[in-house]
Amino acid sequence: MSIVVVGSVAYDTVETANGRRDDALGGAATFFSVAARFFAPVSIVGVIGKDFKAEHEQMLIERGIDVRGLERHEGETFRWHGRYHEDMNKRDTIALALNVFEGFNPTLLPDQQRCDYLFLANISPELQTRVLSQVKSPKLVAADTMDFWIQNARPALMKLLERLDILAINDEEARMLSGEHNLVKAGRAVLKMGPKSLLVKRGEYGVLQFSKDGMFAVPAYPLEDVVDPTGAGDTFAGGLMGFLARNGRITESILRTAVVYGSVMASFAVEKFSLDRLLELSWEEIDLRYRAFIELTDSHSTRWNSPS
Amino acid sequence: MSIVVVGSVAYDTVETANGRRDDALGGAATFFSVAARFFAPVSIVGVIGKDFKAEHEQMLIERGIDVRGLERHEGETFRWHGRYHEDMNKRDTIALALNVFEGFNPTLLPDQQRCDYLFLANISPELQTRVLSQVKSPKLVAADTMDFWIQNARPALMKLLERLDILAINDEEARMLSGEHNLVKAGRAVLKMGPKSLLVKRGEYGVLQFSKDGMFAVPAYPLEDVVDPTGAGDTFAGGLMGFLARNGRITESILRTAVVYGSVMASFAVEKFSLDRLLELSWEEIDLRYRAFIELTDSHSTRWNSPS
Repeated sequence: MSIVVVGSVAYDTVETANGRRDDALGGAATFFSVAARFFAPVSIVGVIGKDFKAEHEQMLIERGIDVRGLERHEGETFRWHGRYHEDMNKRDTIALALNVFEGFNPTLLPDQQRCDYLFLANISPELQTRVLSQVKSPKLVAADTMDFWIQNARPALMKLLERLDILAINDEEARMLSGEHNLVKAGRAVLKMGPKSLLVKRGEYGVLQFSKDGMFAVPAYPLEDVVDPTGAGDTFAGGLMGFLARNGRITESILRTAVVYGSVMASFAVEKFSLDRLLELSWEEIDLRYRAFIELTDSHSTRWNSPS
Repeated sequence: MSIVVVGSVAYDTVETANGRRDDALGGAATFFSVAARFFAPVSIVGVIGKDFKAEHEQMLIERGIDVRGLERHEGETFRWHGRYHEDMNKRDTIALALNVFEGFNPTLLPDQQRCDYLFLANISPELQTRVLSQVKSPKLVAADTMDFWIQNARPALMKLLERLDILAINDEEARMLSGEHNLVKAGRAVLKMGPKSLLVKRGEYGVLQFSKDGMFAVPAYPLEDVVDPTGAGDTFAGGLMGFLARNGRITESILRTAVVYGSVMASFAVEKFSLDRLLELSWEEIDLRYRAFIELTDSHSTRWNSPS
């Protein structure tokens, strides 16, 4: 079951309380691809500039990621410079240069148009819709968005939402999209806009999943050292979609396990700058942390009856 | 297995985005007692003024709470006036009058001195220690504290911590006590100070439990309407200690289930002002929400093996 991801490929300059990294490989589609590839085949669709390093393209190829959809254009690769607060749930954008990403308008290859799993990373809803329209009969479509599109492209976003299986956004975006401060009300309101499931990403507080069947809450894996939160949300989505694609079927149980695997992958991503931790990661480590995650959240409740 | 709780009994004036309530029954020991009494016998030890209403004392008696330790002194009952932000994890104290609580220095009755479970709500560590020293051989001692004591009574607090089974504080207090911003580091550092378990209360983000055996994370139950968060932490502690006292044994599994019951009780407390929701609560409702809580957090993981 193959996955297509469409989104940014970037060079990021990141400042945190723990240090700084200049021009490191980043971008939503990059984090997503590397995370998802642990579970299933992935095609990355994006645009890079003349400055995109051969070693970075080589890395994607060596990991078995299909890069035929990675167009190289004249100009520079998308660049982002961000600075995190001590509370790493907050960050400021210091500089942003879309560069070649500005004219991004991909055409999927025939085999990509037949993909089963499609992830539309954070790009304009119009562009997300154009990509979605090229896919013949996807089994599952998931998307991310951001405050800018919620405020400035709401009609296009609302139309897109009707066609989504999963929307994965953060808590502030869920509040902005729904106009509800309370997250339960926000979640219910967003579900009414179309997506079958809503995943609300809350940074160090984990993920809250809303679906017609109910709610599922998972904490973030508590870490001693969070070095760089950049890409955590896209890594989460990559682990989630990868697990779903590997399983083929989608049930409430499988979706919950996928949310845990997404959380596990995201917990690794933040341990080092850029993709460094994901690139050195072994299956044994993923397995170990998955078990630790289950132990972390297991209330041992099935052994107990209510004392009433 | 009987519980003794020592702490404040108060009249609170509370302002939230949803309204205001003047001179409502409150206080840490009050919320704790009412929550714990659903599970086990409780003795409340505190001080009230001449203005404490007969109907409030009657309510405690009718619920089977032992009020022999509720001393009535000349003067007014402890009063607190607080205002919550739209983000209800934040609040400002508008006014505070200790009144009769200032001279509080209880002597436990002989049967209270033989109690098995002792909860030292947020009072000065010196006073907490004096009460603890009156108890002959408690099975389990838990305590709360606050920023003021961490900053101004650290030596006494550090001595108390060595004698605790459970410390239940909020995330900012854990950071202040340990000097560590990262919550995992903070948790480990606080465990080294003495308590066998640390419960970090994170408001709408739930509870993180640290013990020598590992970590346990539970979310808060997501609610559509949070009316008044006052007393949530003490209600949590009441449900937790009540469940532990009812069981008698303490294992990691029982402690985890107790954390869930504490969270369930807290989720009710915040649905209405003051103790209103706790006072109308039925065992059927507790049982139903306990099941909903388990469903909310169950990753269904035991049915799955890692895809490696």
